[in-house]
Amino acid sequence: MTSQVVLGNVAIVLVQPQIPENIGAVARAMHNMGLNRLVLVDPKNCDHDRMFKMATGSSTNVLDSMDIHKDLREALEPFQYLVGTTARIGASRPALVQPRSLAQKLIPISQDNPVAILFGPEDRGLSNDQLRFCHTIATIPTASFSSLNLAQAVGIVCYELLLATDRTPVAPVPRLANSFELEGMYDHLREMLSKIGFLDPQNPEHWLLNIRRFLSRVPLRAREVRIIRGVCRQMDWYASQFDAPEK
Amino acid sequence: MTSQVVLGNVAIVLVQPQIPENIGAVARAMHNMGLNRLVLVDPKNCDHDRMFKMATGSSTNVLDSMDIHKDLREALEPFQYLVGTTARIGASRPALVQPRSLAQKLIPISQDNPVAILFGPEDRGLSNDQLRFCHTIATIPTASFSSLNLAQAVGIVCYELLLATDRTPVAPVPRLANSFELEGMYDHLREMLSKIGFLDPQNPEHWLLNIRRFLSRVPLRAREVRIIRGVCRQMDWYASQFDAPEK
Repeated sequence: MTSQVVLGNVAIVLVQPQIPENIGAVARAMHNMGLNRLVLVDPKNCDHDRMFKMATGSSTNVLDSMDIHKDLREALEPFQYLVGTTARIGASRPALVQPRSLAQKLIPISQDNPVAILFGPEDRGLSNDQLRFCHTIATIPTASFSSLNLAQAVGIVCYELLLATDRTPVAPVPRLANSFELEGMYDHLREMLSKIGFLDPQNPEHWLLNIRRFLSRVPLRAREVRIIRGVCRQMDWYASQFDAPEK
Repeated sequence: MTSQVVLGNVAIVLVQPQIPENIGAVARAMHNMGLNRLVLVDPKNCDHDRMFKMATGSSTNVLDSMDIHKDLREALEPFQYLVGTTARIGASRPALVQPRSLAQKLIPISQDNPVAILFGPEDRGLSNDQLRFCHTIATIPTASFSSLNLAQAVGIVCYELLLATDRTPVAPVPRLANSFELEGMYDHLREMLSKIGFLDPQNPEHWLLNIRRFLSRVPLRAREVRIIRGVCRQMDWYASQFDAPEK
């Protein structure tokens, strides 16, 4: 909820995008992460079918409501804070931030200020002149091959923004077994493994220690202790069928 | 530099991908982040031109060297640790991790163990049966619209892996059991637990799934698989003593 409101103030601005499929894929990637405001500046090709083919489901809403401008300066007028993105790191491009710290910086700013994140044309990125408009310049870390697909780049920045809103629910941890349950289980295991001859009756603790080490690599859940004791009980039952004939 | 070496042990496995452009876009996204091992399982369409159109520059190398298998189980045999990905969160899919913590977990494991990260078909994702092979199930956080493009999903996971190579202090992990050893162990467990009546013969997989989930909460070491099979063997031996009198 909160994140929708917060990210509603963050727009993605594509400067001279050339490939309509990329525009559609950008809309989908934005919408996945809760951003819905898309601005195109001087797009080379806005073929409806090619754009919409890549924007599945409700992400077509992003395309339906996007703004198209001829001029960058005019397109940026409504925004209080501008972020440029670049893959090229040069002497003239000093203060680069990565998406993770960018996102942490933008969330508080975007509470009360419309923010625009600019992405340049697929083949050459934003020019130095275009980057000059921006308050911050961001770059996405890559291995040696740095040429990211436009929608990939937008997707990673939007993903970091969503995570930075911190609303991602923390997965609850199921109840762990307590020491009483654990020791009961080990007693049961010792008994069962001795019965089937897996543990040396002279020194049951030695092999049981291997089992203990293995089972304590993760904190066991109460439910898992019950499963293990269920197997032990079933073994007991199975063995009891033969107790009489053996004696 | 180091990161290239580390991520060389992590493969992306596309299960029944349907759209060749997505395969090409996956190759590019992987290569951007320093991953180069791509495996296809039963692809629906491998049109060369449509794949290569989306894999620019040196990312074509990823396509040139990818492996294609007909069968998932066979494709996974070389891997010691399997990660499934899903967009669907259901009651039957409990232990979901997000890409960031997944990446921190995988870096140390992947030092000495080949790791495979599985992505399902575009329209329906991995099935419960396919997720059953996996040690960990990961999901990418999204806003309400959760349907990510396949290459976007791969890109975000690979991005987190690249970032994690910089941060994770690496402690070596003992050799993990590979998929072949694990499935052999599950076959053995199924047989033993059926024999003692712990598994319902009408539906052995249901209870075995509980055991699978429990045992895959940590990546099992080769040595631990041997211990578990030792217990199974001992049970077989124990039971065999009574086979004759019972009949």
